[in-house]
Amino acid sequence: MAVREKVFDVIICCFKRHGAEVIDTPVFELKETLTGKYGEDSKLIYDLKDQGGELLSLRYDLTVPFARYLAMNKLTNIKRYHIAKVYRRDNPAMTRGRYREFYQCDFDIAGQFDPMIPDAECLKIMCEILSSLQIGNFLVKVNDRRILDGMFAVCGVPDSKFRTICSSVDKLDKVSWEEVKNEMVGEKGLAPEVADRIGDYVQQHGGVCLVEQLLQDPKLSQNKQAVEGLGDLKLLFEYLTLFGIDDKISFDLSLARGLDYYTGVIYEAVLLQMPTEAGEEPLGVGSVAAGGRYDGLVGMFDPKGRKVPCVGLSIGVERIFSIVEQRLEALEEKVRTTETQVLVASAQKKLLEERLKLVSELWDAGIKAELLYKKNPKLLNQLQYCEETGIPLVAIIGEQELKDGVIKLRSVASREEVDVRREDLVEEIRRRTNQPLYVC
Amino acid sequence: MAVREKVFDVIICCFKRHGAEVIDTPVFELKETLTGKYGEDSKLIYDLKDQGGELLSLRYDLTVPFARYLAMNKLTNIKRYHIAKVYRRDNPAMTRGRYREFYQCDFDIAGQFDPMIPDAECLKIMCEILSSLQIGNFLVKVNDRRILDGMFAVCGVPDSKFRTICSSVDKLDKVSWEEVKNEMVGEKGLAPEVADRIGDYVQQHGGVCLVEQLLQDPKLSQNKQAVEGLGDLKLLFEYLTLFGIDDKISFDLSLARGLDYYTGVIYEAVLLQMPTEAGEEPLGVGSVAAGGRYDGLVGMFDPKGRKVPCVGLSIGVERIFSIVEQRLEALEEKVRTTETQVLVASAQKKLLEERLKLVSELWDAGIKAELLYKKNPKLLNQLQYCEETGIPLVAIIGEQELKDGVIKLRSVASREEVDVRREDLVEEIRRRTNQPLYVC
Repeated sequence: MAVREKVFDVIICCFKRHGAEVIDTPVFELKETLTGKYGEDSKLIYDLKDQGGELLSLRYDLTVPFARYLAMNKLTNIKRYHIAKVYRRDNPAMTRGRYREFYQCDFDIAGQFDPMIPDAECLKIMCEILSSLQIGNFLVKVNDRRILDGMFAVCGVPDSKFRTICSSVDKLDKVSWEEVKNEMVGEKGLAPEVADRIGDYVQQHGGVCLVEQLLQDPKLSQNKQAVEGLGDLKLLFEYLTLFGIDDKISFDLSLARGLDYYTGVIYEAVLLQMPTEAGEEPLGVGSVAAGGRYDGLVGMFDPKGRKVPCVGLSIGVERIFSIVEQRLEALEEKVRTTETQVLVASAQKKLLEERLKLVSELWDAGIKAELLYKKNPKLLNQLQYCEETGIPLVAIIGEQELKDGVIKLRSVASREEVDVRREDLVEEIRRRTNQPLYVC
Repeated sequence: MAVREKVFDVIICCFKRHGAEVIDTPVFELKETLTGKYGEDSKLIYDLKDQGGELLSLRYDLTVPFARYLAMNKLTNIKRYHIAKVYRRDNPAMTRGRYREFYQCDFDIAGQFDPMIPDAECLKIMCEILSSLQIGNFLVKVNDRRILDGMFAVCGVPDSKFRTICSSVDKLDKVSWEEVKNEMVGEKGLAPEVADRIGDYVQQHGGVCLVEQLLQDPKLSQNKQAVEGLGDLKLLFEYLTLFGIDDKISFDLSLARGLDYYTGVIYEAVLLQMPTEAGEEPLGVGSVAAGGRYDGLVGMFDPKGRKVPCVGLSIGVERIFSIVEQRLEALEEKVRTTETQVLVASAQKKLLEERLKLVSELWDAGIKAELLYKKNPKLLNQLQYCEETGIPLVAIIGEQELKDGVIKLRSVASREEVDVRREDLVEEIRRRTNQPLYVC
């Protein structure tokens, strides 16, 4: 949890920096809300037992509940984040950060706006978060569903096979083109020459130059959807350059994304290499963030089908937790699980009352303080407790100190002790632990 | 959510001040873990559908999962907090903050310690939180299960009726003694003279003097359990006096608490009066925090029955949300849902690129900034957006400012505008919005 909180802090801080408000939705939705949104993965949805009342299921992601929420509350305009757990009856793979219950961290912008400005901000947010987390170099692959569909059309894929061929393309980050082609031809009945034409496209990736080049492509330039997608990508790259993140972005024609609801730009961030600390095995963590534009989903929940264009991103925090934990283990860095600034201790017996009085004074002054729950603890045990839990200071009370109106303040690290006047103790602890004022 | 976050901040800040670490447990538990822990309320447990694998239920509170967690991980010693949602198939009552899905905020101290030190800290925490939240005057009722049981014994209640008579006593905060007596005699078959003896006790409340008095009580002083409970309460009051909160505490013999698992001290905080702002109806919110000692629960999950003594508290945040929301509504105080410090705006057209560059600079410097997602928004619309969302500053870019290397910084409240050199802008925004450095 200590690692998780550090990661969440970075993410929430970034979401707030971009002006998002936070929303919450229930952990369960009406079963019908989730039906028909996730393709064949629907079998992974957890249902609640029918104990009377509505049929309910645990949420599978945060995007569908968000779209339901927008439609139900007739919202046409919101920038929100949502950090919560989602549920999938999948095979867990702990080392890769894949669980049945896991966190998603979503940021979405809903509303009718000028093209590519919110989309560019989503990519900026992704880059800011991945940079701040210091989990190594990363690359954000970008594509557009309209370019994919246009490409399938000009290659000669029948309309009915767009989505299934799209799923095959999506596997290119894991398997070779040969295998993908075999699947397209063997399993999905595509003509080999059609597959080869797709192969020529999807093996390309690059920057804005590739966008320009494809806008000149004799076939693609004849397809309205593809031209729209490419035009938007060109604009997107302009904005990304202004944001100073164009070097992190790769236009990658093999990026397809599994979910059905995307309608425009799609993106996925992958780590380029793991931090190579001594003794550390590279983790196969796959993508660590992803998202895209989904302009049709909200309309599915509105009785009149009113659309609300949306674009968003989701940070794959469980994978990030795995990476950060493994890095900390490799560094043998101990993560403190509490924030206690000072332990109130005594060297002599019969000072429980004095310890209780002092710790209470410190709490009331906003200092994070603890004491051992023993009437007469040994000083050594008290010091050991600080070593174990990382408490930096000890406020030691003794008979002499009580007479002199002072407290002995000891630094656990340096073992130095100084007498501090009792009325100055709070200020001195604040100064030493550098705790900003007015902040929790 | 904005109100909730403010309330959570106060609570988490206090839990951390007392040296707690945070833990998390899954939203569902094995069905058998929850079975037999909640008495007749077990019918309110949500079960998951049997889709293969283990039979699961949604957690009903955070205490049973905590005890299960301690036993499973063989922990004998921890001070933790846990803030999460729990689930009950109950009749919701929105105005009183009663829902089927709701938050609990629990703090617990597990471990074998000297008597009453952790118990006193739990009461101190309750008082700190309720004071910080500024939701009005409150009183914490305290009693002890051993005193109740001893009292039942000396009054002549048969052992088998202890728990059911305890439930009747628990109703004394809602109905009169006459009604409770009728239930005891009519429904539960207690002899009227036994009920009357109970009545003499449970209508008493007071401070440490009442504890002293009952220690001299001819009947109670003969009961071992009661004497233990009273002795501990006396010690507790000593510690509460050192903590400066004895004036908030009332020893109340009618406090019984519903849950079966308590074994020692029990407590419940009630609001004495609602803040009486104009136009505000007092809410029937009942108790806002409660807890107690449960030394037997962890042992129920340990294969060898090893006990881990625990004491804890739970803050009834949903009720507190209702109160805080109602108070803010009465005050017509608008709660900001975002933290944006500055809107990047322009007065002239064709400055989208400059706006994007500036907002990106601000984000990279850690400033919370937004811009409207329009190519050429009107200045009026940009200022209106600030008014609506509470953004205090506007950074306005114009052709002239660009030439001069300055940004016009406008205060939304005062409408004052000053030119700030671009390189000083971040510092000036920080200064004006008083954002502490080094903090998210």
